[in-house]
This record gives sequence, structure tokens and C-alpha cells, in this order.
Amino acid sequence: MKAAQYFGPHDIRVVDVPTPEPEEHEALVAIEWCGICGSDLHEYLHGPTSCPPPSRPHPATHSHIPVTMGHEFTGRIISAPASSNLSSGTPVITDPRIFCRSCSRCKYGHTHGCTTLGFKGLSGTGGGFSETIAVDARMCHALPEDVDLSLAALIEPLAVAWHAIATAGLQDWGGKSVLVVGGGPVGVTVCIVLRAFGCGNIIVSEPTTVRAAQNEKVADVVLNPLHDSIGERCRSLTGGEGVDVVFDCAGSQKGFEAGMDAVRYRGLYMNIAAWFGSPMQIPFFPFLLKEVTIKCCLAYNDEEFKDVVEAFVAGRFKGLETMITSKIHIDDIVEKGFDESVANRDQHVKILVTPHKVKA
Amino acid sequence: MKAAQYFGPHDIRVVDVPTPEPEEHEALVAIEWCGICGSDLHEYLHGPTSCPPPSRPHPATHSHIPVTMGHEFTGRIISAPASSNLSSGTPVITDPRIFCRSCSRCKYGHTHGCTTLGFKGLSGTGGGFSETIAVDARMCHALPEDVDLSLAALIEPLAVAWHAIATAGLQDWGGKSVLVVGGGPVGVTVCIVLRAFGCGNIIVSEPTTVRAAQNEKVADVVLNPLHDSIGERCRSLTGGEGVDVVFDCAGSQKGFEAGMDAVRYRGLYMNIAAWFGSPMQIPFFPFLLKEVTIKCCLAYNDEEFKDVVEAFVAGRFKGLETMITSKIHIDDIVEKGFDESVANRDQHVKILVTPHKVKA
Repeated sequence: MKAAQYFGPHDIRVVDVPTPEPEEHEALVAIEWCGICGSDLHEYLHGPTSCPPPSRPHPATHSHIPVTMGHEFTGRIISAPASSNLSSGTPVITDPRIFCRSCSRCKYGHTHGCTTLGFKGLSGTGGGFSETIAVDARMCHALPEDVDLSLAALIEPLAVAWHAIATAGLQDWGGKSVLVVGGGPVGVTVCIVLRAFGCGNIIVSEPTTVRAAQNEKVADVVLNPLHDSIGERCRSLTGGEGVDVVFDCAGSQKGFEAGMDAVRYRGLYMNIAAWFGSPMQIPFFPFLLKEVTIKCCLAYNDEEFKDVVEAFVAGRFKGLETMITSKIHIDDIVEKGFDESVANRDQHVKILVTPHKVKA
Repeated sequence: MKAAQYFGPHDIRVVDVPTPEPEEHEALVAIEWCGICGSDLHEYLHGPTSCPPPSRPHPATHSHIPVTMGHEFTGRIISAPASSNLSSGTPVITDPRIFCRSCSRCKYGHTHGCTTLGFKGLSGTGGGFSETIAVDARMCHALPEDVDLSLAALIEPLAVAWHAIATAGLQDWGGKSVLVVGGGPVGVTVCIVLRAFGCGNIIVSEPTTVRAAQNEKVADVVLNPLHDSIGERCRSLTGGEGVDVVFDCAGSQKGFEAGMDAVRYRGLYMNIAAWFGSPMQIPFFPFLLKEVTIKCCLAYNDEEFKDVVEAFVAGRFKGLETMITSKIHIDDIVEKGFDESVANRDQHVKILVTPHKVKA
């Protein structure tokens, strides 16, 4: 079957690989759609970081590059263990994480903190940029028969945003104000989930006009850090106090400084942007004088993924369709997927890839 | 009267100033002892930072340098408002903070976050390195008649440590493990307060042998970051998990990295060291992979200061006497106080200054 594999930086190839043979506990899934994630792009440009190089095979999968990429995938069941609630044709979204279920973190329910955490599509044992994949049946979540599987491919990034918002630990988002630094794919997803949580004061800081136009659809106010003082504008939008929470979806020093200026006294600065390779300096005076809490979050746990699937099925996420900016065939994944994402970064929120014929 | 005033970096002078005349709400206090704080030293070496320069008078006091220094002072009441519980001769410790009581932070009880926060001894209106001081009578806490006013001068730094520990937000310290990075004056104070909170697993990382010997008296384990892997040792001392909380009392990048390595999954990294002038880079991978919370804390609030006074009077702080490494006369404050602290940094935890004759 076809699979898009990562061989190294700027080296993704569509190759022919054996069709996976599911083990006893695994379902075989025919891939429908799979999104290109920011971490995929990072591997393409600056990797291997998450993908294991030959010198450092993944501790759980024992695989190394080349690995099939793609961890935001939906599809339909081809075969599944009899003990599962899955049958041939069932549409599914798969929680792509690989974890041990036995380390102390897994035992406490923090499976996303597993000491040997991996991901289908990054760590080996198959990925969503292919025709089929064998996955642990427990990780497959059945979706309604009439589901739009392209929209459902957004469930994984929605779960990342959901986890960040849940990790913030606030009970009632209705009266809370939020600054989202960076209106790219992660920022848009955070806005959509914040809205599902009832947040009514979502401010986005985004310098590009293309993305700002996308952000207008999901946020209350969109500011331009090139022209606005983000801190001053946020204070004036929050009765002088500053925002309750900042979600850093940009990972830039300037954004960090603007966000730390904008956050209220004893507020929360939540990092949800990968800071690989760009060391971030803590802006000391706001950190000290406002006693700000700075947190980081990674992926999502079992409950959160399940909650997101339920919220998706219940229609709680508004504006998802605007996130999909391109749908491409797997044969075009390098040119129309990765290279396009790099060349026209601001034009895209999410590019979806399919092994099937793409309808015009 | 005599007062040691800060004129600028490396310029502290003992000068003659008018004896303060208390306002109606103020008590007049005869100074007994006043400690030299790390922030005083910072002003001496690298200021003015906390002391207001002429170009930026303090918003609450409207004063600027020269200002009388010293904010860790005890003394006895000379005169006090009739409405207070203070009378001539009452031994007191003074909460040295200056706050407005009317901004939104003060109204919520976060008086230490007052938007115009100042300190006696840094912001003008007198300080503890003098013979007398006029202070708001509400800020004076009466002490027992038989109190040792030199030990009581440690109440202010104890309150700083108490606030950091309270801000960590843990309920039961009995079963918690803590790493204190840096065994200087702040680190020692944190250890003493942690012990008062019942913490039974206090690990200190300190590179100098002199300080390590001091730390042995107040901690369970003292590690040397020049020889030990702090992260590995902390994990082996905590069943493999890492410490629950790190208190950064050093403010160095290496200490930050060691502490972030040593903290457990979803643990807390609490900064209680001033990071003026030395930008700190967040160690990204432990921050992300362990979802660490990073917090900062400043000073203490009214309740906390009161709690510390009560705990001090109740004898809950063990080993305080070992903190006082020198007692000097105000006339010697530059040579035997500030210059000595710089020249023999590791020899000292706390140097106390008095305007009275020093007993041999």
C-alpha cells in the first residue's frame, strides 16, 4: 500500500509498504482523512525531533526513521477484535497515542505523561498518511454513520486545545477573559474549544491579515501586535485588570512578553506552542510583580479525548469547516501539503490528506 | 539622628537626619536590630532598582534617593496612637510594606500586589538602619516582653519564605519532598519554614562548603551540584519520581536547569530568587514533557505576616540563632556590613545592624 514516510528533514517520500497485519487486540482501519500537524511540519523542516533517528529507536515501538507520518486520522473499520464494539465499516477517530499503561504516570491516569509516550504517525508502527493502519482497538472511538470524516480529523488537534484549557483548571469560563497569542492552527483551535466551554471574551493577537480574517470568525476581538500594544488593549478590554489566562500558541519571545504584560495579577500563562530550538526568556518583572503562573501542556489524556469526541458528535464546536483550507491526495503530500504549508504558511489552517480520489 | 542612607551603587553613607515626627496614625519606634537583606545588597551593587532614582520618585511616598535603608527591623515603641494596642516600651516587629488599601489587588487582600507597593527602607519615609522610625501603627506587631529582638528581626525574611510556601498551595507538607536550590540566606529561611510546616524531606543543592555546613543544620540532605547530578539524586531520594516542589533560591540558569530536571511530573517550580538582570531561559523539554508549573512570588500579605509572628512567638522556627552570623554597629555598616557581605558572601547568612552599643 501507499504510505508517506519521513526519512529526514525535507525528505518525505510516498513509498510502497506492506499492508499492516493487525494483532489480536488491534483493529485494521482504512484511512479516510489525515491532517498535517505543526509537529509534522517541524519534523519536515528541523527534525528528526519527535521521529526517532536510527541512533535512538523509540523505547516503546523500537522503530526509527523512516516512519509513516500522520497522527490526525479518521477512517472506517476493515476488521476489529470480536470483543470490541467496532465492526466493518464503522467510522472511527483514533487516539494516536502509544503508552505503556504500567508506569506511575499511566497508573495515575496521566497516560499523556507516559515515560515512553509515543504517537502513531511519529514513533513508528504506522501513520495516517497511508491507506490502512493497524491500531489498538481500545484507541478507536466509533463515530455516527453520517459523520463528516474530514471534520472529524480535527478531533485530535481539538483534544490538544481541550487539554490545555482543562489544565488551566478554571471552573467557569463564562466570565473569564482570554488572550490567545498567535492565530495560527493551534490558536484557532483554542478559540473554538474556548467557545465550546462558554468563554465570552476571547482576544487574539495575530500579525498577519490573512490569519486575522480567519480569527475574526472564532474570536471576539483580534488585535495586531505590530500596531497595538497588546497589554494596554487587553487591560482596556478587561476593566483595567488584564486577561485571566493567556494561551501562547505562537512560541515567540515577543509574544511571551506581550502575553505576560497582558495577563492580570495572579493570572495564568499557558504554553501550548512548541518551543523547540527557540529558548524563551521569562519576562521577569511581570512574572514577579504579578505573581504569574506559567504552565505547559502536552497532548491529552484518555478522558479528555473521549470528552472531545462526545462534544464533537454533539455539535459543540462551531466553525470547524472554516479550519480546513485544503484537501489533497497522498500523492501530492510533499508539494501541495508540506511545501505548500511552508510557502504559504498564513493561508492555511489545516490541510487534509486522503489516499482516495479528491472530489473537486 | 544617625541613619544609613543609600545614595547610589557602592554609596551608602551614615548621615545625620532629623528625627521623624510621627503623624496621628503612626507609632514612633526606637530601632533595636535590622537585618541586611539580599535586596539591600543588590541595590548596593547594581542599584538603584527598588530604591527610586530622582527621575522616578516612588508613586506612594513621592521620595527618591537618598533614602534610609533597612526593612527587617525590630524595636521598642516610643509613642503610639491611643487607639492602638501599643504603649511605650512595647517590643515590636514592623511589617515594612507600604500599600494603598484601595486598588483592586489590595481590596482582594493581595496587599503585596498593590500597584504602588513600597517598603520602608527602600522606598523612602525612613528605614531600619537608623535610630528611630515613624510607622503606621497598624503595621506594628507587639511581641512578648522577653522576646529576643535580634531573632525577631528574622521575622520579615521568614515571612517571605512563608508566603512562597503558602503560594505553592499544598495542603499537607508532611509527605512532600522539596528541593531548595541555593543554600544562601533565602534557602536557609525556606528550610526553616518548611520544617515548621512539617516537611520531612528537604534536600538542598549548594556548591560552597561553608554554606553546605550551615544547610546541614536545617535540611535532611545537602547535595553539591558540582559533584552530584541533582536530578538523579533527587529521583533516587524520592522513589524515582522527583521532588514535589523546587524552591529556587539561587536564580541561576544552571540551578533552573537542575531544578527542572529534579522536579516530578506535574510538579511545581517556585521562584523566590530575584532574577534582576540575569535573563532565565525555560528548560523546554522538562517543562513540556512533565507539564511543570512555574510560579513566582513576592513578599507576603497581611495574614501571612501575622501568621509568621504567631509562629515565631510559639517557637515553631528551629535553628534561627544559627542564621545570625554577625552583629554590628550602624557606624560600621558599610565596612562590616555591605562590604563584608560581598567579600565573604558564603560566610554569612544574616548580618544584623544596631544603633546601640554591640555587646562582645
